[in-house]
Amino acid sequence: MTKVRLHIAYDGTNYVGWQKQTGRKSPTIQGELEEALLQLTGENFKTIGSGRTDSGVHARHQVVHFTFNEPDKYPWVKALNSLTGEQILVKAAYAAPSEFHALASARKKTYSYYIQNSSLRPLFRRQYCWWQRRPLDLQWLQAAAKLVQGKQDFKSFQSQGTPVPDTVREVFSAKWYLHPGELLEFRITGEGFLKQMVRNLVGTQIQLHLKGAKPSTLIDILKAKSRQAAGLTAPAHGLFLNSVEYPPELDNQCRKL
Amino acid sequence: MTKVRLHIAYDGTNYVGWQKQTGRKSPTIQGELEEALLQLTGENFKTIGSGRTDSGVHARHQVVHFTFNEPDKYPWVKALNSLTGEQILVKAAYAAPSEFHALASARKKTYSYYIQNSSLRPLFRRQYCWWQRRPLDLQWLQAAAKLVQGKQDFKSFQSQGTPVPDTVREVFSAKWYLHPGELLEFRITGEGFLKQMVRNLVGTQIQLHLKGAKPSTLIDILKAKSRQAAGLTAPAHGLFLNSVEYPPELDNQCRKL
Repeated sequence: MTKVRLHIAYDGTNYVGWQKQTGRKSPTIQGELEEALLQLTGENFKTIGSGRTDSGVHARHQVVHFTFNEPDKYPWVKALNSLTGEQILVKAAYAAPSEFHALASARKKTYSYYIQNSSLRPLFRRQYCWWQRRPLDLQWLQAAAKLVQGKQDFKSFQSQGTPVPDTVREVFSAKWYLHPGELLEFRITGEGFLKQMVRNLVGTQIQLHLKGAKPSTLIDILKAKSRQAAGLTAPAHGLFLNSVEYPPELDNQCRKL
Repeated sequence: MTKVRLHIAYDGTNYVGWQKQTGRKSPTIQGELEEALLQLTGENFKTIGSGRTDSGVHARHQVVHFTFNEPDKYPWVKALNSLTGEQILVKAAYAAPSEFHALASARKKTYSYYIQNSSLRPLFRRQYCWWQRRPLDLQWLQAAAKLVQGKQDFKSFQSQGTPVPDTVREVFSAKWYLHPGELLEFRITGEGFLKQMVRNLVGTQIQLHLKGAKPSTLIDILKAKSRQAAGLTAPAHGLFLNSVEYPPELDNQCRKL
């Protein structure tokens, strides 16, 4: 049993997220991708992504698989890119071993959250960042980000919806970067994330900072293990799924198509 | 008589250009700006821009003026930014001397034209660059750009529409840059430009390059003084008006509001 592994990117602006919604007409990335696969092959495929991205969230690198025994039958990248809209891009296709599973095999994910910190609202980047008018202090943010690292219970940063019983996650790194054009980036790498965890971490940091709290307040919030203890959810359009990593031994068995 | 000088930026995607069109409902930057001024002041102002930008062309820095004797009466930047849509940004306002004229006083303009030169189509930048799939050679392009510099008759690069009798223009500099992410930029500075001149220069360079012509073919095209001799017009959405410069003695008399 062979699998086809796709690397895709998308502009989430006009989608209600990755996951197909049964019975609803709202456009989803998964829905559009499966529709393109159907048009190309005449077959219905069930695709599996490395994880859901919420409504409005973007992806520079999302990994998807589906089961298909003739991986060489179609020029996936070229064909799918002519069938998906301009907001979804298929970057690469691989023949993957049967053990490969886009969701279950994933070991690491990196997200970036962008904030334009300027007196003027963003123009060309307006769909890809959150606007914060009041000056933010990079040192404060770095101190706060440090506290998020490590293996911890992130229950306070899990949004309602589909709560999971185990809310302990390991965050390998969490850091802020300042880019030209007054653009701040919060980049976080972890084994996995709870629902809206990255946006809750960003929103909480900004809110604490703006009301003059100490970065260490984050420790109390983590300890509280309650969503009420944390702050707001930063808006979806500032968030990008940047990368998904798999065990090298699985990657090595993938053959570029 | 005082003038108000505005520095604005806009995403040209959904506009039919800078210039207001009488009797038409198509959205223009000038129309939207004058509508915002009317809402703010209750008065009808006739604004003058440093030049028109065509349908779909963007501006990082466009200069506009209108006559008004009470420049301090309104908080222009803040007020106008809350009245214009998210695709127009007022960056700064100045009280300018009566001699200042956004169009007549302009001495230099710089445009940038962006091309994404990659096998995959652009995603997040798709509304701000032209996609060229076949690999372009930076050295070829630099050699061609050099030939465009200087005081020359650019008649071959003037699109039909409103032909001007004098088609001689001085180009102070014209250069290509390669940015990360396979992004090429053609940056050109001149005293002024003919209708669609920058897009015609870009389209012609790319077309000549792709059909294997020598850069020096541009000399023959310039000599021909005929639009038929040149190549295609590169699409509008890759073009940005980057800056407009005025004599320092006029700038020095402007007071930030």
